[in-house]
Amino acid sequence: MDNRADWFETANDATKVLLQLSQRPEVISLAGGMPAPEIFPSDAVAAAFDRAIRQNPARSLQYGPAEGIGPLRETVAEKLRQDGLPVEADNIIITTGSQQGLVLIGQTLLNRGDGIALDEPTFLGALDAWRPASPTYTAIDWSGNTPTFAPAGAATPKFAYALPNFRNPTGETMPLAQRQALVDAAKRDSVILLEDNPYGALRFEGEQPASLLSLGAGDGPYDGPVVYMGTVSKTLAPALRVGWIAAPAGMVDSLIVAKQGLDLCTSPLNQYAALNLIESGVEEETSKAAQTLYRSRRDAMLDALRQFMPENVSWTQPEGGMFIWVTLPETLDSQQVFDAAASAGVGIVPGSVFYAMNPVRNTIRLNFTNTSEDKIRTAVERLGQVLQAQHQAAA
Amino acid sequence: MDNRADWFETANDATKVLLQLSQRPEVISLAGGMPAPEIFPSDAVAAAFDRAIRQNPARSLQYGPAEGIGPLRETVAEKLRQDGLPVEADNIIITTGSQQGLVLIGQTLLNRGDGIALDEPTFLGALDAWRPASPTYTAIDWSGNTPTFAPAGAATPKFAYALPNFRNPTGETMPLAQRQALVDAAKRDSVILLEDNPYGALRFEGEQPASLLSLGAGDGPYDGPVVYMGTVSKTLAPALRVGWIAAPAGMVDSLIVAKQGLDLCTSPLNQYAALNLIESGVEEETSKAAQTLYRSRRDAMLDALRQFMPENVSWTQPEGGMFIWVTLPETLDSQQVFDAAASAGVGIVPGSVFYAMNPVRNTIRLNFTNTSEDKIRTAVERLGQVLQAQHQAAA
Repeated sequence: MDNRADWFETANDATKVLLQLSQRPEVISLAGGMPAPEIFPSDAVAAAFDRAIRQNPARSLQYGPAEGIGPLRETVAEKLRQDGLPVEADNIIITTGSQQGLVLIGQTLLNRGDGIALDEPTFLGALDAWRPASPTYTAIDWSGNTPTFAPAGAATPKFAYALPNFRNPTGETMPLAQRQALVDAAKRDSVILLEDNPYGALRFEGEQPASLLSLGAGDGPYDGPVVYMGTVSKTLAPALRVGWIAAPAGMVDSLIVAKQGLDLCTSPLNQYAALNLIESGVEEETSKAAQTLYRSRRDAMLDALRQFMPENVSWTQPEGGMFIWVTLPETLDSQQVFDAAASAGVGIVPGSVFYAMNPVRNTIRLNFTNTSEDKIRTAVERLGQVLQAQHQAAA
Repeated sequence: MDNRADWFETANDATKVLLQLSQRPEVISLAGGMPAPEIFPSDAVAAAFDRAIRQNPARSLQYGPAEGIGPLRETVAEKLRQDGLPVEADNIIITTGSQQGLVLIGQTLLNRGDGIALDEPTFLGALDAWRPASPTYTAIDWSGNTPTFAPAGAATPKFAYALPNFRNPTGETMPLAQRQALVDAAKRDSVILLEDNPYGALRFEGEQPASLLSLGAGDGPYDGPVVYMGTVSKTLAPALRVGWIAAPAGMVDSLIVAKQGLDLCTSPLNQYAALNLIESGVEEETSKAAQTLYRSRRDAMLDALRQFMPENVSWTQPEGGMFIWVTLPETLDSQQVFDAAASAGVGIVPGSVFYAMNPVRNTIRLNFTNTSEDKIRTAVERLGQVLQAQHQAAA
């Protein structure tokens, strides 16, 4: 318990520090998980808010239904159906960003101490969201023929959490065979599978494997085992604070009750603006712009890593998303690297904060979406010097 | 426990039903707690969003700091100082509406089963917000010379919750002497006093007693015992989803950690728009417009109640806010009145949902802000007929 309390403190401090670093212009930040502001369709966003207000201010400026405005639930369901996902409007609840979706899932599914299975490292915000329920974490075990969610004899977790596309923090994509195995195991063990997909639209190379949601669906009305989460934060702008959960209709009813308690409703104004931006094709254009820009930035980061990293450092090669995951020699501690890098004017995130159970201390997360190619190169060069110095000190 | 579970179900169903009633145009709803859309300054809101986006889209459309944007924290602190409240920017955290403020307070202060003292009936949304912590509720005991927060021998609650201005659901204002006594008792017992003030700006007659916050403050930096909550939902528009908590700086640090877990940040766009609307005086103009309109509507409701209510029905005479609280003969059950009124085309809220401990079943809450004078009159007339019929059936 003490270890976990420490860990939570570290993790939350890191979240806070990295949000604060983002406010300091002199630091080149490869921390955070922020989209490039260059992709924000600001004229279209301004027009969408203006239209949403003027068309019906009595509706867009008022409180709205806790489940979200009807037309946005319809549009999100239609969007998912186009991707082959068998959902209707009553399978959708609108959330105040994906982060709130994670909280809602936790409040609805977890009793105190219940289990959650996941792959480490994982999204820090999810661990923050579930913290009030003090869950017990288990690692999904991929060592056998089929994955298992808990050691033999241990309690079955309430749900398993997966980020199949460009996982935060590693940038990795889960291959189709693993997805199918995970869905099969979830059905076998009656475990809900939570598919968090904030980055799926940010693929700039390679083929998109089928979603867990589509792999898990039967022929009838959608009844699990997969619960799916999406957001416009990465495809339009984070400040819309509009996300959604797709779940079996009965579970949506429970989520609505929890949602009322959390913030009554997501801003109808922001929802109408998001609806307009999705329907008018601006979201799709923005995703394409992001793909192009992020590919260049990823390439710049991979080039710089190849050039400036000392020996015995390795990293992932993501096909999309926002992050590269760097593994350092085991003699280095990422917290010390974090401090030294900050002094050298580079923001990174120490990898240890992304672990719910067993922190690996020689890993760091780099973001490539929110920094120009030039600055990425400069930052990685500085980081290389920091690592070289730490490596020599440790040797 | 079963009673409370039932109660929560009822309360949440009622919240849901009344949000849904608000979407049915054929019903005259005196339920809900919605401002009049006539007061929404829609041109100014549209201009504020436009300006916030165009002035700096890289900032307003991006993720922001969890504690809220600096200039809004400053402006809120300045606004509170003008009311004599001794707070600085680092005493302020911006929340996604007041509802989220209640959740944050609960997550930060409550361990499972901890106590909360309050006056019944109370705000339903607060009970929803604290539900995940399963608190133990006690009634503030006003029967002695000074108020007490728990029966002798019982555990001292973590905080006491008060809505001193036009309390939801009764519309009553706490007199100055009671406020002073409550602050003194909080200091004596080391109990935090949570002052929820969503309606304070909606006073249309009478003198405003000093806030708990100002009564509790000493000469040095603000250090409690009062934690204060405000919002622009009633003075600009609910869809901004911008509220705030003023608290001792150390507590604000804990609230920020909890806030990150809940939704990362309140929309910077919505915050910059709210900032503009406060600084340009639009918020104050809107409050004044609301005072004028709501006074007429309250008067219309009081007139209609005098004319159409059967004998042995009584009601409060609020000097502001949004609600009138009606007490029925003890033979009537507000849940049956709710059903019959809905059939007769009138939405009300059965009073029993506003109790955390001992529901009083012969009470109902009427909202006067979101309905025209004509419709208020028609609705109260219909309600009078419903009560007459129920009264005869019960006799």
